[in-house]
Amino acid sequence: MKPPINKDTQLCMSLSARPGNFGTRFHNHLYDALGLDFVYKAFTTTDLPAAIAGIRALGIRGCAVSMPFKEACIPYLNRLDASAAVLQSVNTIVNEGGVLHAYNTDYLAVRQLLAQQQIDPALRFVLRGSGGMARAVAFALRDAGFTRGTILARNEAAGQALAHDLGNQHGENKSGGFVWQPEHWQPRPEEAQLLINVTPIGMAGGPEAAALAFAPAQIAAGQAVMDVVALPAETPLIQAARAHRKPVITGAEVIELQALEQFVLYTGVRPDAAQVQAAATFARS
Amino acid sequence: MKPPINKDTQLCMSLSARPGNFGTRFHNHLYDALGLDFVYKAFTTTDLPAAIAGIRALGIRGCAVSMPFKEACIPYLNRLDASAAVLQSVNTIVNEGGVLHAYNTDYLAVRQLLAQQQIDPALRFVLRGSGGMARAVAFALRDAGFTRGTILARNEAAGQALAHDLGNQHGENKSGGFVWQPEHWQPRPEEAQLLINVTPIGMAGGPEAAALAFAPAQIAAGQAVMDVVALPAETPLIQAARAHRKPVITGAEVIELQALEQFVLYTGVRPDAAQVQAAATFARS
Repeated sequence: MKPPINKDTQLCMSLSARPGNFGTRFHNHLYDALGLDFVYKAFTTTDLPAAIAGIRALGIRGCAVSMPFKEACIPYLNRLDASAAVLQSVNTIVNEGGVLHAYNTDYLAVRQLLAQQQIDPALRFVLRGSGGMARAVAFALRDAGFTRGTILARNEAAGQALAHDLGNQHGENKSGGFVWQPEHWQPRPEEAQLLINVTPIGMAGGPEAAALAFAPAQIAAGQAVMDVVALPAETPLIQAARAHRKPVITGAEVIELQALEQFVLYTGVRPDAAQVQAAATFARS
Repeated sequence: MKPPINKDTQLCMSLSARPGNFGTRFHNHLYDALGLDFVYKAFTTTDLPAAIAGIRALGIRGCAVSMPFKEACIPYLNRLDASAAVLQSVNTIVNEGGVLHAYNTDYLAVRQLLAQQQIDPALRFVLRGSGGMARAVAFALRDAGFTRGTILARNEAAGQALAHDLGNQHGENKSGGFVWQPEHWQPRPEEAQLLINVTPIGMAGGPEAAALAFAPAQIAAGQAVMDVVALPAETPLIQAARAHRKPVITGAEVIELQALEQFVLYTGVRPDAAQVQAAATFARS
Protein backbone atom coordinates (compact mmCIF):
# COMPACT_ATOMS: atom_id res chain seq x y z
CA MET A 1 0.00 0.00 0.00
CA LYS A 2 1.04 3.56 -0.76
CA PRO A 3 1.61 5.49 2.50
CA PRO A 4 -0.43 8.65 3.13
CA ILE A 5 1.28 11.78 1.79
CA ASN A 6 3.96 12.84 4.25
CA LYS A 7 7.01 15.08 4.47
CA ASP A 8 9.16 12.63 2.51
CA THR A 9 6.68 12.04 -0.31
CA GLN A 10 8.27 13.06 -3.60
CA LEU A 11 6.43 15.37 -5.99
CA CYS A 12 6.52 14.94 -9.74
CA MET A 13 4.72 17.34 -12.04
CA SER A 14 4.12 18.58 -15.56
CA LEU A 15 4.39 21.98 -17.16
CA SER A 16 2.29 22.86 -20.17
CA ALA A 17 0.29 25.76 -21.52
CA ARG A 18 -2.98 23.86 -21.07
CA PRO A 19 -2.58 20.94 -18.66
CA GLY A 20 -4.49 17.77 -19.41
CA ASN A 21 -5.45 15.03 -16.97
CA PHE A 22 -3.65 12.05 -18.52
CA GLY A 23 -0.28 12.43 -16.79
CA THR A 24 -1.67 13.26 -13.37
CA ARG A 25 -4.06 10.30 -13.38
CA PHE A 26 -1.59 7.89 -15.02
CA HIS A 27 1.29 8.53 -12.60
CA ASN A 28 -0.83 8.68 -9.43
CA HIS A 29 -2.57 5.45 -10.38
CA LEU A 30 0.78 3.69 -10.79
CA TYR A 31 2.10 5.14 -7.51
CA ASP A 32 -0.92 3.66 -5.76
CA ALA A 33 -0.62 0.32 -7.54
CA LEU A 34 3.10 0.02 -6.78
CA GLY A 35 3.01 1.50 -3.28
CA LEU A 36 5.43 4.29 -4.20
CA ASP A 37 5.66 7.35 -1.95
CA PHE A 38 5.17 9.85 -4.77
CA VAL A 39 2.47 12.28 -5.82
CA TYR A 40 1.94 13.83 -9.28
CA LYS A 41 0.28 17.06 -10.30
CA ALA A 42 -0.04 19.05 -13.55
CA PHE A 43 0.90 22.74 -13.55
CA THR A 44 1.00 25.61 -15.97
CA THR A 45 3.04 28.80 -15.75
CA THR A 46 3.51 32.20 -17.32
CA ASP A 47 7.05 32.46 -15.93
CA LEU A 48 9.08 29.50 -17.15
CA PRO A 49 12.47 30.47 -15.64
CA ALA A 50 10.90 30.95 -12.19
CA ALA A 51 8.94 27.69 -12.52
CA ILE A 52 12.14 25.77 -13.30
CA ALA A 53 14.07 27.57 -10.55
CA GLY A 54 11.24 26.50 -8.23
CA ILE A 55 11.55 22.85 -9.33
CA ARG A 56 15.22 22.95 -8.44
CA ALA A 57 14.80 24.94 -5.20
CA LEU A 58 11.90 22.83 -3.90
CA GLY A 59 13.48 19.50 -4.81
CA ILE A 60 10.57 18.53 -7.06
CA ARG A 61 11.76 15.16 -8.37
CA GLY A 62 10.60 15.27 -11.97
CA CYS A 63 8.75 17.37 -14.50
CA ALA A 64 7.14 16.52 -17.81
CA VAL A 65 7.44 19.40 -20.27
CA SER A 66 4.90 20.07 -23.01
CA MET A 67 4.28 22.78 -25.57
CA PRO A 68 5.30 25.59 -25.63
CA PHE A 69 8.12 24.95 -23.17
CA LYS A 70 10.05 22.07 -24.76
CA GLU A 71 12.75 24.23 -26.32
CA ALA A 72 12.40 27.32 -24.14
CA CYS A 73 13.35 25.40 -21.00
CA ILE A 74 16.78 24.32 -22.25
CA PRO A 75 18.78 27.36 -21.03
CA TYR A 76 17.56 26.76 -17.45
CA LEU A 77 18.56 23.08 -17.22
CA ASN A 78 21.92 21.59 -16.30
CA ARG A 79 22.51 18.47 -18.41
CA LEU A 80 21.00 17.28 -21.67
CA ASP A 81 20.74 13.55 -22.34
CA ALA A 82 21.50 12.61 -25.96
CA SER A 83 17.75 12.17 -26.57
CA ALA A 84 17.14 15.84 -25.76
CA ALA A 85 20.38 17.16 -27.21
CA VAL A 86 19.85 15.66 -30.66
CA LEU A 87 16.41 17.28 -30.92
CA GLN A 88 17.13 20.39 -28.84
CA SER A 89 13.75 19.56 -27.32
CA VAL A 90 13.01 18.41 -23.76
CA ASN A 91 9.92 16.62 -22.51
CA THR A 92 11.29 15.28 -19.21
CA ILE A 93 13.31 16.89 -16.42
CA VAL A 94 14.80 14.78 -13.63
CA ASN A 95 16.09 16.60 -10.55
CA GLU A 96 19.18 14.85 -9.18
CA GLY A 97 19.87 16.78 -5.98
CA GLY A 98 19.43 20.20 -7.58
CA VAL A 99 21.04 19.23 -10.89
CA LEU A 100 18.37 19.20 -13.60
CA HIS A 101 18.83 16.46 -16.22
CA ALA A 102 16.84 16.69 -19.45
CA TYR A 103 15.50 13.90 -21.64
CA ASN A 104 13.17 13.42 -24.56
CA THR A 105 11.10 10.30 -23.92
CA ASP A 106 9.08 10.74 -27.14
CA TYR A 107 12.32 9.99 -28.96
CA LEU A 108 13.20 7.18 -26.56
CA ALA A 109 9.73 5.63 -26.88
CA VAL A 110 9.76 5.68 -30.69
CA ARG A 111 13.21 4.10 -30.76
CA GLN A 112 12.06 1.38 -28.40
CA LEU A 113 8.87 0.68 -30.38
CA LEU A 114 10.77 0.48 -33.67
CA ALA A 115 13.07 -2.09 -32.07
CA GLN A 116 10.23 -4.05 -30.43
CA GLN A 117 8.28 -4.25 -33.69
CA GLN A 118 11.51 -5.09 -35.53
CA ILE A 119 10.80 -2.52 -38.21
CA ASP A 120 13.60 -2.97 -40.74
CA PRO A 121 15.75 0.17 -40.98
CA ALA A 122 16.38 -0.61 -44.61
CA LEU A 123 12.80 0.50 -45.32
CA ARG A 124 12.28 3.93 -46.90
CA PHE A 125 9.87 6.01 -44.87
CA VAL A 126 7.40 8.75 -45.64
CA LEU A 127 6.74 10.87 -42.57
CA ARG A 128 3.84 13.31 -42.71
CA GLY A 129 4.42 16.36 -40.49
CA SER A 130 7.20 18.75 -39.49
CA GLY A 131 6.41 19.89 -35.93
CA GLY A 132 8.17 19.02 -32.69
CA MET A 133 6.84 15.47 -32.51
CA ALA A 134 7.67 14.90 -36.20
CA ARG A 135 11.24 15.86 -35.40
CA ALA A 136 11.33 13.43 -32.46
CA VAL A 137 10.07 10.59 -34.65
CA ALA A 138 12.36 11.45 -37.57
CA PHE A 139 15.50 11.61 -35.40
CA ALA A 140 14.52 8.35 -33.71
CA LEU A 141 14.24 6.74 -37.16
CA ARG A 142 17.58 8.08 -38.28
CA ASP A 143 19.32 7.05 -35.07
CA ALA A 144 17.72 3.58 -35.36
CA GLY A 145 19.56 3.21 -38.65
CA PHE A 146 17.06 4.41 -41.23
CA THR A 147 19.02 6.13 -44.00
CA ARG A 148 16.37 7.09 -46.54
CA GLY A 149 13.10 8.89 -46.04
CA THR A 150 10.81 11.70 -47.10
CA ILE A 151 9.35 14.45 -44.93
CA LEU A 152 5.92 15.31 -46.31
CA ALA A 153 4.93 18.74 -45.02
CA ARG A 154 2.80 21.72 -45.90
CA ASN A 155 5.32 23.94 -44.13
CA GLU A 156 8.18 23.90 -46.63
CA ALA A 157 10.65 25.74 -44.38
CA ALA A 158 10.11 23.34 -41.47
CA GLY A 159 10.09 20.30 -43.77
CA GLN A 160 13.29 21.33 -45.54
CA ALA A 161 14.96 22.11 -42.22
CA LEU A 162 14.04 18.73 -40.79
CA ALA A 163 15.29 16.84 -43.86
CA HIS A 164 18.48 18.89 -43.78
CA ASP A 165 19.04 18.38 -40.05
CA LEU A 166 18.54 14.62 -40.40
CA GLY A 167 21.19 14.54 -43.11
CA ASN A 168 23.71 16.52 -41.11
CA GLN A 169 24.67 13.83 -38.66
CA HIS A 170 27.76 14.82 -36.72
CA GLY A 171 28.17 17.84 -38.99
CA GLU A 172 28.63 15.57 -42.01
CA ASN A 173 26.37 16.28 -44.97
CA LYS A 174 24.77 13.05 -46.12
CA SER A 175 22.15 14.89 -48.19
CA GLY A 176 20.07 12.82 -50.52
CA GLY A 177 19.07 10.28 -47.84
CA PHE A 178 16.38 12.53 -46.38
CA VAL A 179 14.31 14.91 -48.49
CA TRP A 180 11.32 17.16 -48.14
CA GLN A 181 8.32 16.90 -50.44
CA PRO A 182 5.12 18.98 -50.51
CA GLU A 183 1.93 17.59 -49.00
CA HIS A 184 0.39 16.18 -52.13
CA TRP A 185 3.49 14.54 -53.50
CA GLN A 186 2.78 11.00 -54.67
CA PRO A 187 5.60 8.61 -53.79
CA ARG A 188 6.37 5.55 -55.85
CA PRO A 189 5.77 2.35 -53.82
CA GLU A 190 9.50 1.76 -53.20
CA GLU A 191 9.73 5.25 -51.69
CA ALA A 192 6.93 4.64 -49.16
CA GLN A 193 7.58 1.38 -47.38
CA LEU A 194 7.04 2.71 -43.85
CA LEU A 195 4.17 5.23 -43.59
CA ILE A 196 4.15 7.54 -40.60
CA ASN A 197 1.57 10.14 -39.62
CA VAL A 198 2.64 12.90 -37.24
CA THR A 199 -0.21 15.32 -37.98
CA PRO A 200 -3.69 15.66 -36.41
CA ILE A 201 -5.27 13.71 -39.29
CA GLY A 202 -7.53 11.05 -37.74
CA MET A 203 -7.67 12.73 -34.32
CA ALA A 204 -11.02 12.43 -32.54
CA GLY A 205 -12.89 15.71 -32.45
CA GLY A 206 -10.62 17.33 -35.04
CA PRO A 207 -11.68 18.54 -38.52
CA GLU A 208 -10.04 15.50 -40.16
CA ALA A 209 -11.17 12.83 -37.69
CA ALA A 210 -12.47 10.57 -40.44
CA ALA A 211 -9.62 11.21 -42.90
CA LEU A 212 -6.86 8.80 -43.87
CA ALA A 213 -3.34 10.21 -43.50
CA PHE A 214 -2.22 8.14 -46.51
CA ALA A 215 -4.09 6.95 -49.60
CA PRO A 216 -5.57 3.42 -49.46
CA ALA A 217 -3.28 2.27 -52.29
CA GLN A 218 -0.23 3.51 -50.40
CA ILE A 219 -1.31 1.67 -47.27
CA ALA A 220 -1.91 -1.49 -49.27
CA ALA A 221 1.54 -1.20 -50.86
CA GLY A 222 3.40 -0.26 -47.63
CA GLN A 223 5.15 -2.66 -45.28
CA ALA A 224 4.47 -1.00 -41.91
CA VAL A 225 2.49 1.93 -40.49
CA MET A 226 2.93 4.25 -37.53
CA ASP A 227 0.54 6.91 -36.28
CA VAL A 228 1.20 9.28 -33.37
CA VAL A 229 -2.47 10.22 -33.00
CA ALA A 230 -3.40 8.62 -29.66
CA LEU A 231 -7.11 9.41 -29.47
CA PRO A 232 -8.50 7.21 -30.83
CA ALA A 233 -5.76 4.59 -30.74
CA GLU A 234 -7.48 2.99 -33.74
CA THR A 235 -7.31 5.89 -36.21
CA PRO A 236 -8.58 5.38 -39.74
CA LEU A 237 -4.92 4.91 -40.79
CA ILE A 238 -4.28 2.25 -38.14
CA GLN A 239 -7.56 0.51 -38.96
CA ALA A 240 -6.70 0.41 -42.66
CA ALA A 241 -3.21 -0.93 -41.91
CA ARG A 242 -4.62 -3.63 -39.63
CA ALA A 243 -7.10 -4.61 -42.35
CA HIS A 244 -4.07 -5.31 -44.56
CA ARG A 245 -2.32 -7.12 -41.67
CA LYS A 246 0.58 -4.66 -41.67
CA PRO A 247 2.66 -4.23 -38.52
CA VAL A 248 1.53 -1.05 -36.78
CA ILE A 249 2.77 1.30 -34.06
CA THR A 250 -0.11 3.32 -32.60
CA GLY A 251 -0.08 6.74 -31.00
CA ALA A 252 -1.47 5.20 -27.83
CA GLU A 253 1.60 2.96 -27.67
CA VAL A 254 3.87 5.97 -28.15
CA ILE A 255 2.16 8.11 -25.50
CA GLU A 256 2.00 5.26 -22.99
CA LEU A 257 5.61 4.24 -23.52
CA GLN A 258 6.92 7.79 -23.29
CA ALA A 259 4.93 8.28 -20.06
CA LEU A 260 6.29 4.95 -18.79
CA GLU A 261 9.85 6.02 -19.56
CA GLN A 262 9.23 9.24 -17.59
CA PHE A 263 7.89 7.13 -14.76
CA VAL A 264 11.02 4.97 -14.74
CA LEU A 265 13.30 8.03 -14.85
CA TYR A 266 11.49 9.60 -11.88
CA THR A 267 11.02 6.55 -9.67
CA GLY A 268 13.61 4.00 -10.79
CA VAL A 269 10.78 1.45 -10.88
CA ARG A 270 9.50 -0.21 -14.09
CA PRO A 271 5.86 -1.33 -13.87
CA ASP A 272 4.80 -4.37 -15.87
CA ALA A 273 2.63 -4.16 -18.98
CA ALA A 274 -0.59 -4.96 -17.12
CA GLN A 275 0.04 -2.24 -14.57
CA VAL A 276 0.78 0.31 -17.29
CA GLN A 277 -2.33 -0.75 -19.17
CA ALA A 278 -4.50 -0.39 -16.08
CA ALA A 279 -3.08 3.07 -15.34
CA ALA A 280 -3.54 4.21 -18.94
CA THR A 281 -7.13 2.94 -18.98
CA PHE A 282 -7.82 4.74 -15.69
CA ALA A 283 -6.12 7.92 -16.96
CA ARG A 284 -8.35 8.01 -20.04
CA SER A 285 -11.56 7.29 -18.12
CA MET B 1 -15.55 12.28 -1.37
CA LYS B 2 -12.34 13.96 -2.42
CA PRO B 3 -11.75 13.46 -6.16
CA PRO B 4 -8.55 11.72 -7.30
CA ILE B 5 -5.68 14.19 -7.86
CA ASN B 6 -6.17 15.82 -11.24
CA LYS B 7 -4.93 18.79 -13.26
CA ASP B 8 -7.11 21.23 -11.30
CA THR B 9 -6.13 19.97 -7.83
CA GLN B 10 -4.57 22.82 -5.87
CA LEU B 11 -1.25 22.30 -4.10
CA CYS B 12 -0.47 23.78 -0.70
CA MET B 13 2.89 23.29 0.96
CA SER B 14 5.26 24.22 3.73
CA LEU B 15 8.83 25.49 3.73
CA SER B 16 11.09 24.81 6.67
CA ALA B 17 14.67 23.83 7.36
CA ARG B 18 13.61 20.45 8.74
CA PRO B 19 10.09 19.56 7.63
CA GLY B 20 7.88 17.69 10.10
CA ASN B 21 4.86 15.59 9.32
CA PHE B 22 2.15 17.47 11.24
CA GLY B 23 1.11 19.96 8.53
CA THR B 24 1.16 17.45 5.67
CA ARG B 25 -0.94 14.92 7.55
CA PHE B 26 -3.27 17.53 9.12
CA HIS B 27 -4.14 19.31 5.88
CA ASN B 28 -4.48 16.18 3.73
CA HIS B 29 -6.71 14.56 6.34
CA LEU B 30 -9.02 17.58 6.31
CA TYR B 31 -9.05 17.73 2.50
CA ASP B 32 -10.20 14.11 2.49
CA ALA B 33 -12.78 14.66 5.21
CA LEU B 34 -14.23 17.74 3.50
CA GLY B 35 -13.95 16.49 -0.08
CA LEU B 36 -11.71 19.39 -1.11
CA ASP B 37 -9.67 19.11 -4.30
CA PHE B 38 -6.36 20.03 -2.66
CA VAL B 39 -3.13 18.25 -1.83
CA TYR B 40 -0.50 19.27 0.76
CA LYS B 41 3.19 18.51 0.94
CA ALA B 42 6.11 19.69 3.10
CA PHE B 43 9.26 20.99 1.40
CA THR B 44 12.63 22.36 2.37
CA THR B 45 14.96 24.51 0.31
CA THR B 46 18.46 25.94 0.23
CA ASP B 47 17.37 28.69 -2.20
CA LEU B 48 14.55 30.67 -0.64
CA PRO B 49 14.12 33.32 -3.38
CA ALA B 50 13.86 30.62 -6.06
CA ALA B 51 11.47 28.57 -3.92
CA ILE B 52 9.15 31.56 -3.52
CA ALA B 53 9.48 32.49 -7.18
CA GLY B 54 8.45 28.89 -7.91
CA ILE B 55 5.39 29.16 -5.66
CA ARG B 56 4.30 32.21 -7.63
CA ALA B 57 5.20 30.81 -11.06
CA LEU B 58 3.57 27.40 -10.48
CA GLY B 59 0.42 28.79 -8.92
CA ILE B 60 0.95 26.87 -5.67
CA ARG B 61 -2.01 28.07 -3.61
CA GLY B 62 -0.49 28.42 -0.18
CA CYS B 63 2.69 27.92 1.80
CA ALA B 64 3.35 27.61 5.52
CA VAL B 65 6.68 29.17 6.47
CA SER B 66 8.79 27.96 9.39
CA MET B 67 12.23 28.70 10.75
CA PRO B 68 14.57 30.01 9.42
CA PHE B 69 12.50 31.55 6.64
CA LYS B 70 9.88 33.60 8.52
CA GLU B 71 11.68 36.93 8.19
CA ALA B 72 13.93 36.14 5.24
CA CYS B 73 10.94 35.56 2.95
CA ILE B 74 9.49 39.06 3.36
CA PRO B 75 11.39 40.80 0.52
CA TYR B 76 10.02 38.24 -1.98
CA LEU B 77 6.34 38.63 -1.09
CA ASN B 78 3.84 41.17 -2.37
CA ARG B 79 1.49 42.16 0.46
CA LEU B 80 1.80 41.88 4.23
CA ASP B 81 -1.32 41.45 6.30
CA ALA B 82 -1.27 43.41 9.59
CA SER B 83 -0.54 40.16 11.45
CA ALA B 84 2.72 39.72 9.54
CA ALA B 85 3.57 43.41 9.27
CA VAL B 86 3.40 44.05 13.01
CA LEU B 87 5.82 41.19 13.69
CA GLN B 88 7.85 41.42 10.49
CA SER B 89 7.47 37.66 10.54
CA VAL B 90 5.49 35.49 8.11
CA ASN B 91 4.23 31.96 8.68
CA THR B 92 1.62 31.80 5.90
CA ILE B 93 1.71 32.77 2.23
CA VAL B 94 -1.46 32.82 0.15
CA ASN B 95 -1.10 33.04 -3.64
CA GLU B 96 -3.89 35.14 -5.13
CA GLY B 97 -3.29 34.77 -8.87
CA GLY B 98 0.45 35.37 -8.63
CA VAL B 99 0.19 38.03 -5.90
CA LEU B 100 1.69 36.61 -2.70
CA HIS B 101 -0.13 37.71 0.49
CA ALA B 102 1.61 37.13 3.83
CA TYR B 103 0.05 36.43 7.22
CA ASN B 104 1.11 35.33 10.67
CA THR B 105 -1.43 32.84 11.94
CA ASP B 106 0.47 32.26 15.21
CA TYR B 107 -0.45 35.84 16.06
CA LEU B 108 -4.00 35.40 14.77
CA ALA B 109 -4.45 32.14 16.73
CA VAL B 110 -3.25 33.64 20.01
CA ARG B 111 -5.53 36.65 19.60
CA GLN B 112 -8.47 34.35 18.92
CA LEU B 113 -7.71 32.09 21.92
CA LEU B 114 -7.37 35.08 24.26
CA ALA B 115 -10.78 36.27 23.12
CA GLN B 116 -12.37 32.77 23.33
CA GLN B 117 -11.07 32.24 26.86
CA GLN B 118 -12.09 35.80 27.74
CA ILE B 119 -8.71 36.48 29.33
CA ASP B 120 -9.06 39.98 30.83
CA PRO B 121 -6.63 42.41 29.15
CA ALA B 122 -6.38 44.30 32.44
CA LEU B 123 -4.24 41.40 33.75
CA ARG B 124 -0.49 41.95 34.00
CA PHE B 125 1.39 39.23 32.19
CA VAL B 126 4.76 37.59 32.59
CA LEU B 127 5.94 36.05 29.34
CA ARG B 128 8.94 33.75 29.43
CA GLY B 129 10.90 33.78 26.17
CA SER B 130 12.10 36.24 23.53
CA GLY B 131 12.25 34.29 20.25
CA GLY B 132 10.01 34.55 17.22
CA MET B 133 7.03 32.81 18.80
CA ALA B 134 7.45 34.93 21.97
CA ARG B 135 7.19 38.02 19.78
CA ALA B 136 4.03 36.69 18.11
CA VAL B 137 2.40 36.03 21.49
CA ALA B 138 3.53 39.36 22.97
CA PHE B 139 2.22 41.42 20.05
CA ALA B 140 -1.05 39.48 20.12
CA LEU B 141 -1.39 40.34 23.82
CA ARG B 142 -0.64 43.99 23.24
CA ASP B 143 -3.03 44.22 20.28
CA ALA B 144 -5.72 42.45 22.34
CA GLY B 145 -5.51 45.36 24.79
CA PHE B 146 -2.97 44.22 27.36
CA THR B 147 -1.03 47.27 28.50
CA ARG B 148 1.28 45.93 31.20
CA GLY B 149 3.61 42.98 31.11
CA THR B 150 7.08 41.62 31.68
CA ILE B 151 9.29 39.80 29.22
CA LEU B 152 11.37 37.28 31.19
CA ALA B 153 14.36 36.29 29.08
CA ARG B 154 17.91 35.02 29.38
CA ASN B 155 18.79 36.92 26.20
CA GLU B 156 18.81 40.49 27.47
CA ALA B 157 19.18 42.11 24.06
CA ALA B 158 16.20 40.22 22.61
CA GLY B 159 14.13 40.71 25.75
CA GLN B 160 14.83 44.46 25.91
CA ALA B 161 14.11 44.81 22.18
CA LEU B 162 10.79 43.01 22.51
CA ALA B 163 9.69 45.09 25.49
CA HIS B 164 10.73 48.22 23.64
CA ASP B 165 8.98 47.24 20.41
CA LEU B 166 5.76 46.47 22.30
CA GLY B 167 5.87 49.94 23.83
CA ASN B 168 6.42 51.69 20.55
CA GLN B 169 2.97 51.29 19.14
CA HIS B 170 2.47 53.49 16.11
CA GLY B 171 5.82 55.13 16.82
CA GLU B 172 4.54 56.42 20.12
CA ASN B 173 6.68 55.55 23.14
CA LYS B 174 4.48 54.12 25.86
CA SER B 175 7.47 52.76 27.80
CA GLY B 176 6.88 51.55 31.28
CA GLY B 177 3.96 49.30 30.27
CA PHE B 178 6.23 46.55 28.98
CA VAL B 179 9.57 45.75 30.57
CA TRP B 180 12.27 43.14 30.34
CA GLN B 181 13.51 41.26 33.42
CA PRO B 182 16.24 38.60 33.69
CA GLU B 183 15.31 34.94 33.91
CA HIS B 184 15.35 34.54 37.64
CA TRP B 185 13.49 37.73 38.50
CA GLN B 186 10.76 37.04 41.05
CA PRO B 187 7.59 39.02 40.33
CA ARG B 188 5.23 40.18 43.04
CA PRO B 189 1.83 38.45 42.66
CA GLU B 190 0.16 41.56 41.17
CA GLU B 191 2.84 41.61 38.45
CA ALA B 192 2.19 38.01 37.39
CA GLN B 193 -1.52 37.51 36.85
CA LEU B 194 -1.24 35.85 33.44
CA LEU B 195 1.69 33.41 33.17
CA ILE B 196 2.92 32.51 29.70
CA ASN B 197 5.64 30.09 28.68
CA VAL B 198 7.17 30.49 25.24
CA THR B 199 10.35 28.47 25.87
CA PRO B 200 11.04 24.71 25.48
CA ILE B 201 10.53 24.14 29.22
CA GLY B 202 8.18 21.17 29.59
CA MET B 203 8.69 19.91 26.03
CA ALA B 204 8.68 16.14 25.66
CA GLY B 205 12.12 14.77 24.95
CA GLY B 206 13.85 18.03 25.87
CA PRO B 207 16.31 18.54 28.75
CA GLU B 208 13.61 20.32 30.81
CA ALA B 209 10.69 18.00 30.04
CA ALA B 210 9.80 17.62 33.72
CA ALA B 211 10.43 21.25 34.70
CA LEU B 212 7.81 23.86 35.56
CA ALA B 213 8.12 27.12 33.59
CA PHE B 214 6.86 29.06 36.64
CA ALA B 215 7.19 28.36 40.37
CA PRO B 216 4.29 26.53 42.05
CA ALA B 217 3.52 29.57 44.23
CA GLN B 218 3.31 31.80 41.12
CA ILE B 219 0.93 29.38 39.46
CA ALA B 220 -1.21 29.22 42.58
CA ALA B 221 -1.31 33.03 42.76
CA GLY B 222 -1.89 33.60 39.03
CA GLN B 223 -5.25 34.00 37.33
CA ALA B 224 -4.61 32.30 33.99
CA VAL B 225 -1.87 30.28 32.25
CA MET B 226 -0.74 29.83 28.68
CA ASP B 227 1.92 27.49 27.32
CA VAL B 228 3.01 27.25 23.69
CA VAL B 229 4.68 23.87 24.16
CA ALA B 230 2.42 21.55 22.15
CA LEU B 231 4.01 18.17 22.88
CA PRO B 232 2.75 17.17 25.34
CA ALA B 233 -0.37 19.34 25.40
CA GLU B 234 -0.48 18.69 29.17
CA THR B 235 2.90 20.15 30.14
CA PRO B 236 3.84 20.29 33.82
CA LEU B 237 2.81 23.97 33.75
CA ILE B 238 -0.61 23.22 32.25
CA GLN B 239 -1.14 20.32 34.66
CA ALA B 240 -0.33 22.52 37.64
CA ALA B 241 -2.65 25.28 36.40
CA ARG B 242 -5.48 22.79 35.88
CA ALA B 243 -4.91 21.45 39.41
CA HIS B 244 -5.63 24.97 40.61
CA ARG B 245 -8.61 25.27 38.23
CA LYS B 246 -7.07 28.19 36.40
CA PRO B 247 -8.18 28.94 32.84
CA VAL B 248 -5.51 27.63 30.44
CA ILE B 249 -4.50 27.99 26.83
CA THR B 250 -2.37 25.04 25.69
CA GLY B 251 0.28 24.89 23.00
CA ALA B 252 -1.77 22.19 21.28
CA GLU B 253 -4.64 24.69 20.99
CA VAL B 254 -2.29 27.30 19.55
CA ILE B 255 -0.72 24.99 16.97
CA GLU B 256 -4.08 23.54 15.93
CA LEU B 257 -5.74 26.92 15.62
CA GLN B 258 -2.88 28.46 13.67
CA ALA B 259 -2.96 25.48 11.31
CA LEU B 260 -6.74 25.84 11.05
CA GLU B 261 -6.41 29.52 10.18
CA GLN B 262 -3.93 28.59 7.45
CA PHE B 263 -6.41 26.01 6.21
CA VAL B 264 -9.16 28.63 6.04
CA LEU B 265 -6.90 31.13 4.24
CA TYR B 266 -5.92 28.50 1.63
CA THR B 267 -9.30 26.89 1.02
CA GLY B 268 -11.94 29.38 2.15
CA VAL B 269 -13.55 26.51 4.10
CA ARG B 270 -13.75 26.37 7.92
CA PRO B 271 -13.95 22.82 9.30
CA ASP B 272 -15.83 22.26 12.54
CA ALA B 273 -14.12 21.49 15.84
CA ALA B 274 -14.64 17.73 15.56
CA GLN B 275 -13.10 17.65 12.08
CA VAL B 276 -10.10 19.67 13.27
CA GLN B 277 -9.70 17.40 16.27
CA ALA B 278 -9.81 14.28 14.13
CA ALA B 279 -7.23 15.72 11.71
CA ALA B 280 -4.93 16.80 14.55
CA THR B 281 -5.18 13.38 16.19
CA PHE B 282 -4.40 11.71 12.87
CA ALA B 283 -1.51 14.12 12.23
CA ARG B 284 0.11 13.26 15.57
CA SER B 285 -0.37 9.51 15.19
